[in-house]
Formats: sequence, structure tokens, C-alpha cells
Amino acid sequence: MLSLPLATASGERAPLVDALFTAVSAVCVTGLATVDTGSYWSLFGQVVILLLIQAGGLGIMTLATLIALLLRHRLGLRARLVAQTETKTLTSADVRRVVRRVVLFSLVCEAVVAVVLTARFAAEYDERLGAALYDGVFHAVSAFNNAGFSTNADSLVGYAGDPVVLGAVCAAVVVGGLGFPVVFELVRSWRRPSRWSVLTRITVAVTAVLLVVGTVGYLVGEVSNPATLGALDPEDRALGAFTASVMARTAGFNAVDIGALRPETLFLTDVLMFIGGGSAGTAGGIKVTTFGLLAFVVWAEVRGEPAVVVGRRRVPQATQRQALSVALLGTALAVVGTSLLLDLSRVSLDQALFEAVSAFATVGLSTGITADLPTSAQLVLVALMLAGRVGPLTLATALALRERSRRTQYPEERTIVG
Amino acid sequence: MLSLPLATASGERAPLVDALFTAVSAVCVTGLATVDTGSYWSLFGQVVILLLIQAGGLGIMTLATLIALLLRHRLGLRARLVAQTETKTLTSADVRRVVRRVVLFSLVCEAVVAVVLTARFAAEYDERLGAALYDGVFHAVSAFNNAGFSTNADSLVGYAGDPVVLGAVCAAVVVGGLGFPVVFELVRSWRRPSRWSVLTRITVAVTAVLLVVGTVGYLVGEVSNPATLGALDPEDRALGAFTASVMARTAGFNAVDIGALRPETLFLTDVLMFIGGGSAGTAGGIKVTTFGLLAFVVWAEVRGEPAVVVGRRRVPQATQRQALSVALLGTALAVVGTSLLLDLSRVSLDQALFEAVSAFATVGLSTGITADLPTSAQLVLVALMLAGRVGPLTLATALALRERSRRTQYPEERTIVG
Ligand SMILES: [K+]
Ligand SMILES: [K+]
Repeated sequence: MLSLPLATASGERAPLVDALFTAVSAVCVTGLATVDTGSYWSLFGQVVILLLIQAGGLGIMTLATLIALLLRHRLGLRARLVAQTETKTLTSADVRRVVRRVVLFSLVCEAVVAVVLTARFAAEYDERLGAALYDGVFHAVSAFNNAGFSTNADSLVGYAGDPVVLGAVCAAVVVGGLGFPVVFELVRSWRRPSRWSVLTRITVAVTAVLLVVGTVGYLVGEVSNPATLGALDPEDRALGAFTASVMARTAGFNAVDIGALRPETLFLTDVLMFIGGGSAGTAGGIKVTTFGLLAFVVWAEVRGEPAVVVGRRRVPQATQRQALSVALLGTALAVVGTSLLLDLSRVSLDQALFEAVSAFATVGLSTGITADLPTSAQLVLVALMLAGRVGPLTLATALALRERSRRTQYPEERTIVG
Repeated sequence: MLSLPLATASGERAPLVDALFTAVSAVCVTGLATVDTGSYWSLFGQVVILLLIQAGGLGIMTLATLIALLLRHRLGLRARLVAQTETKTLTSADVRRVVRRVVLFSLVCEAVVAVVLTARFAAEYDERLGAALYDGVFHAVSAFNNAGFSTNADSLVGYAGDPVVLGAVCAAVVVGGLGFPVVFELVRSWRRPSRWSVLTRITVAVTAVLLVVGTVGYLVGEVSNPATLGALDPEDRALGAFTASVMARTAGFNAVDIGALRPETLFLTDVLMFIGGGSAGTAGGIKVTTFGLLAFVVWAEVRGEPAVVVGRRRVPQATQRQALSVALLGTALAVVGTSLLLDLSRVSLDQALFEAVSAFATVGLSTGITADLPTSAQLVLVALMLAGRVGPLTLATALALRERSRRTQYPEERTIVG
């Protein structure tokens, strides 16, 4: 679709590699771009991109929700000693119900954010209502699905210091990144954390820790940098640091110039991007669940405890091994991708590592080198985006469902990783 | 000792941070240096360094051998159903025997290499016999213990293309890096690989793979670089690449200029350094055993097999978890160390990552920034060297011995990691 002449602003046919890159980037909700979304593509092209984002985001979230449900189902049923044959299937009615709920949830969230953004764009930035509505919807969909595409060439830099726009976008990003099952459980029993599932516990705890660490890290690293946070008014700096820390964890909008970040902040961003967001949401990376589980495993090892326990539930060995596999395969992908980028182009390690991790974790932040990379290196990024989007999740799924059942001695609770 | 005026060539008292840095670097057999070993320290100072290296290397190898023995002992006895009380102790006669063998093994290896080097230095490089003997002994001890200290300011760059010197040093490094239990087992039953223990299998296989990957990687990356391998005669390039790949894995001598390496080769070196050498030898890093075990775990996971099997032996869950913990703690140390170096100085990510990994893995290669770092950053390196040397090993030990025994269903074989 994007290779049609109709899709570009100039009316000329886009080169195949640019069209491919943009389409993959959109459907994987990455947001890396070899061309500027707002000026290169026509309105038709932009709508195609938006639909690809929505389709990609919905697909990911539905799939993840179904897996989470399937894993819980098996255990709920097993605990109640119901017939084993039922445990491995979901009826098509279940599937339809989940899809309906996820779609409804997505559209409602996006609509709320779109309304807020549209109102703000129209009131404060003197956009005509049509343009404000279009920008509002585009950014809302892009934010909720953690895509990070923007119609502005400088992403959100123009809104730095605006708590309404940044707040709405951050909220959409965080909710979309937590994922439907976690949000659903939070809404239903947010007063009683003791009842939360392992998935929700780990997702909420790790997300909170990473947001705090990220915000503090950005403040410490960049407050004295006049090209980034140092340029803002003192009262806007905390907002800027918080926004940057939310976006690094997979959304990929930027309200500061990534290319001007200090190396220590870039490296911090690499780490945040690699960890990514929630397992059942639209985020990428190895996922906070994987990271949190591994932290619990190491902690149990350091304490010398034979079992890994999260909130009174033992984490099965099989889940631990899945988390390990997802993290190590992710590391291998990032290392190989970085090496290939270094080999194929003349960029620095800073830039190559950032670009590779950003593509793998479907973040879409860039130090600004994407468009200038040779075609071979851009194809490496395409492969990384696909592997990062499809890989860990399907891998974990395939593994979770293939694994043979063993007798259990304690009540266990499984949770998805990757 | 090194802070005595007697220890420096100039007769002035060395600054405390330089003396501390050198002493830690020597006893951890790292080889990073803030001052030039050959010209800054007097003969007395150099002998002190040599004794520290020998003590550090012997200590590590003895300890690792005892642990390996202890782990095997427990299982051998358990398999034969001997009284449980005997399984957790080694008699002091055992310890004395092991110490005696390790010392003998080390001294014999070092003597052979020292003789070869002395002869070569005297015959080809016109050194007087005394000087040749001193250089030969110094390099032999430094190589066998994987220390990487050299009396030459340019390490082994002066011998690039000399197959005798580089061959002898590489042999000492590889044998020292494999470790006593592995070498002992190889000597005893090298014709029958089917009888090798898990430790020996993994160590030999991963070492061979990494040497080949490293050599090919250096050749591909650097053959066109006139500042490094490109400067050598074509027939010397393979030797140079092989040497570089041996040294990256923990020894830390260099026969090419590290500061002139391309970023992709630096990154490859980071990976090789991080993996390091054998568990029971003088090498550092997370160890080839850890890396190999984790590769087997991921492979089993990808295949969907419930048990991790290496050469007909099941790897216990506890060992898998130890390997995971060592690798993740190592990663965390490297990431935190790199961030601190970036924060405390104005070096690039290339340089900071290289320096941090080199210190953690007690490699001692450097892009040449060590001496110019601020004192705070040098103290970070001191901490990394100590943590890298002491940390993973003692951690794994403490864990291995504290872990509670559980009934075993299959014949299992434990192996040390870290
Ligand atoms: K994104
Ligand atoms: K070393």
C-alpha cells in the first residue's frame, strides 16, 4: 500500500526499502523511520500507517491476553481438579469475548486521550479543529499502541513543558504498556494488592521502579546539558525527565533531542529500552515480567532458597527457564544486531547499540542515523524489529504450550514471560 | 610494599592510588595499569608485582580445584551411598595434596615457557642472558597466570609476527586458563572424550568455538585496518588474529594496538572478555562453563525438552540457577561499572564499556585511557577488578555448599560455574 504513488506527499512512488521499512515499523509498533512521517507521506499514506499501527497493536494485545488467560485457565482448572482435556483449549466463544473486550478497551482509551489532545491542540496551539482532531487521533492511537509515530518532524519536542499533552500521551503509553489483563485486574481489585496475580504484581512493581530510576537518571545525567533538559525551565525539567523515562520503555516519542543526550544517559536509555514494558501490552523489549522474574530468581539464589517465591506463589522451574531463554535470546539478538550495524556502516558504538536495541525493543527512538544508514543496515533493523516483535512472545508461547505437564507439589501460578 | 620509595624507578614514593591500583591489578591478575610497569617501577617493585601475580594465580587455581573436587566428591560418594556426613568435608591431607599438585603443575608449566622465551629473547632479540632470563620468567609467570603484565611498555607489540614468542605465550595462557582439573583430565584420558566430565566437555568445546570465532572475527574486522593487522605481512595476520583472540579471553597481553581497533572489533572483544576462560583456571569473566551451560539451557528450552542434558548427564536445576545468577550479576556489574565510568569521566561508550568489562573480567586490555581517568573512576575499576575476581567464584561456592540436598532421581553430575 505504501509503495503506491498515492501514498507520498510528492506523488512519486516511494523506494521499496522505505515503504517496507515504514510498513514493518508501523505494524511492529516500533516507530523508527527512514523518512519523515508528516512531510514525506500523504494523508492517505499516513492513514495507512495509522491503520497498520492499530492492527499491530490490537493483534499483539489480543494474543497476549489470550495467552495469559490460557495459562491461568489451566491452573485454575487443575487446582479445582477438573477434567484434564479441557485445560488446553479455549472455546471460540472465549476468544470472541476476549477480542471484543480488548478492542473495546483500546478504542475507549484511545478516544479519551484523543479528545484531551484535540481540545488542547485546538485551544493552546491554534490549530483548526480538523487538524487538531487529526493530530489528536493520530497521537492517541500511536501512543496507546506504543508506536511512537508522530506527524511532527520533531516528535513531541514542540510540546516540551506542556503537562496536558505530555501527561495525556504518557498516560496512554503507560496504560497500553501495562496491557489489558493487568489493567483489568487493577481496576477490579486495586484496593487489595494481596489478591493480585504474579503477572500484575511483577508488572506494577517493576514498572514503578523503572519509572523512578529512569526519571532520576535522566535528571542527574541531563540537567546540566543545555541541549536537552538544561534548556527547559527548572519547573519543567522533572516533567521532561519523567516523560523521557516513560518513552524509553517502549513508546518512542521524544520530547528532547536524543542525538544530544550524554553518553551515560544514552546507555541508561539502552537498558530501559531493552527491559521494555508489560508482557500483555503493546510494549516491546524482553518485558518487565521477564526482568522481574529473573531478579527474583537471582535473589532466591543469593539467599540460598531452593524455591523462587513471588507473593506466596512458587514460580515453576519451567517459567524460570522461559524467562532465562527470552532474556538470553534477546541479548544475543541485540549483540548480533549491534555488531552487524557496526560492520555495515561507519557509526559509533553509542549509535549502533542504541539503534539496535531501539529496533529490537520496538521503541523507535533514534540518535538520528536511521535515514542515513546503508540499505543493508536498514534491512538489519527490519529484521530486528520483526524478531523483537514476533520472536520472544511466540517463542514463550510455543514453549509454554508445548511443555509437558508434571505433577505439582505446591500451589503454583504460571505467568507469561517475553 | 609498592608504596615504598624503593619500589619505583625514580626512588620517589608512588601515590597511594597508583600503588593500590597496581597491587589490586596484580593480585587479581588483571593487568590494567595506571603507570608503565617496565619504566615506572624499580626491579624491586617489579619482583613484588610478580610475586603478587604468582600468589593471586596460585590462590585462585587452588581454590577452584578444591571446589571442583568437593563437588565431584559429594556426588561420587552419594552415588555409592556412603555415609552422608563424609560428603561435605575434605580432609586436610586432601587439601595439602591438591595444593602441592597445583603448585607443581604451575611451576613446571611456567618453567617450560620461561626456558623457551629466554632462549628466544637471547637468540633473536640480542638480549644479554640475564635480561633475557628475567624477561622470560616475568612473561611466563604473567602469561600462565593470565595476568597480562609486561615489562615492555607496548606489551607484545614488538614481537608481532614472531611465532615462537607468541606461540609460547599463547600456550601458557590457554593452559593456565583451562585450569588444573581440566588439564589433568585431558592428560589422563584425552583419547576418550566419552569419559570426560561435564566441566571438561564444556570448557574444551566452548574454548575451541570462541577461539575460532574470535580469530575469524579479528581477521574480518581488522585485516583492512592499516593501524592493526593490516600493517603485518599477510602470512603473519592469521597469527596476529589468533593471538588477539586468545588474549581477549582474559590474558590481556596485546600484540596489536587496542586503541586503533575498529568499533566492531572492540565490541567483539568486549563479548569475548565478558565470557572469559575456564572455571578452574586463572582466567576471569563469567567463565566458559557458565556461558556453555546457559547455551545448553536455552537449547533445551527451544527444543522443548524438560531436562538439560550435557553428554548423557542431566544438569541439576541448582546448577542452572547458579549459572544464571553468575551471568546476570556479571551483567549488572558491567552495566553499573560502565555507567559510573561514563558519569565520572568524559570517555566514549566504546572506551567505558571496554575498560569496565576488561576490569570485571580481569583481562587488562585497555584502549589506553586508564592512566588519564580521574581517581574516582580508577577506584571504580579497582572495585570492578575485586568484584570480578572474588565475586562470581565465591558467590557460586557459597551457593553450592549452602544449598540443601534433595533426593535425586537420575544420575546427576555437578560442575562449578562462575
Ligand atoms: K515504539
Ligand atoms: K589479565
